[in-house]
Amino acid sequence: MAPLANGGFGRGPREIILGIDPGSIHTGWGVVESVGNELRHIAHGTINPPPALALGARLSQIRRGLQQVIERHRPGVVSLEKVFFARNVQSALKLGQARGVALLTVAENPIELAEYSATQIKIAVAGYGQATKEQVQKMVGALLGLRGPIGADAADALAAAICHIHRRAFQGLVQSLGARPRAASWRHYLDAAGRR
Amino acid sequence: MAPLANGGFGRGPREIILGIDPGSIHTGWGVVESVGNELRHIAHGTINPPPALALGARLSQIRRGLQQVIERHRPGVVSLEKVFFARNVQSALKLGQARGVALLTVAENPIELAEYSATQIKIAVAGYGQATKEQVQKMVGALLGLRGPIGADAADALAAAICHIHRRAFQGLVQSLGARPRAASWRHYLDAAGRR
Repeated sequence: MAPLANGGFGRGPREIILGIDPGSIHTGWGVVESVGNELRHIAHGTINPPPALALGARLSQIRRGLQQVIERHRPGVVSLEKVFFARNVQSALKLGQARGVALLTVAENPIELAEYSATQIKIAVAGYGQATKEQVQKMVGALLGLRGPIGADAADALAAAICHIHRRAFQGLVQSLGARPRAASWRHYLDAAGRR
Repeated sequence: MAPLANGGFGRGPREIILGIDPGSIHTGWGVVESVGNELRHIAHGTINPPPALALGARLSQIRRGLQQVIERHRPGVVSLEKVFFARNVQSALKLGQARGVALLTVAENPIELAEYSATQIKIAVAGYGQATKEQVQKMVGALLGLRGPIGADAADALAAAICHIHRRAFQGLVQSLGARPRAASWRHYLDAAGRR
């Protein structure tokens, strides 16, 4: 087990979080467990429907793949990146199609959904909102004590899961301090975590 | 039964076509039957998941609604508008999410998928690629002999279904004339149909 990045405050019960990074060519997924204030890597992978398949059939493979992961690991929460930007309308459409199927699959299972911005996710794993894809990959590997490289899509999925655990840990801290959650911020949490 | 718009040439067997106009707030659908060179309205409607529901739950309602329509009417073909443009990245993402769920639902049933551009669909029902939404609504109602107004989303879905029937009729004509399909065009078909 590796401690939560930046120290961490989690003292909650055991929880399994599935991060998903949807895409019609590569859908990354990663399962992380949080126990107390530690996080543990369970599994990760990428669903790669053959590009030659029709889009509908690829989306169907993504749904079946995610459903298998959900049935195998039974996460209580799915963590997903919110999307605000895309290169252009066509890439937003493509991303939307895969994301819609991921959201549908989650909604058809008894799972809570949590969404975080790319900046929140990067801060959670790399301590820096402008971190590059490579920095995220490295930090995810280090935080989870993984040997060898992780694919970019699976790393992004694991990062989303880690972000959720941080967020929960932060909320737990705020409550235990009796502070009003609105008065606190993610940045305060990270500053506090950094000073530990 | 109403004759195919612009005359029409279809002499093929009976076929049931489901047009879908996906959207996360309103998903229009329309079922049209083609028998010989005539087309007949079967049913149409709109799936309207409550906007207060979470997106995943709305997408799930769209999937269940479309699945019910498919099971009730057993279409051989689904006709869908291809999307090239959107107001912005956020609307492309939202449209993509609903469209992905529609494509998935079709792919998980034994149905052929046909896609047409907005211009092809407008030409098929209104004879004019720049037709307004209101003109499409009126022409769909007239072509199918419907009384009273049709919702814009259901009208767009019916228009996609009618477009597919025209396209098939055109292909049938090309084959019966012994012409090489590549030498002919949609415009030739419409010109020929207009002269009848």
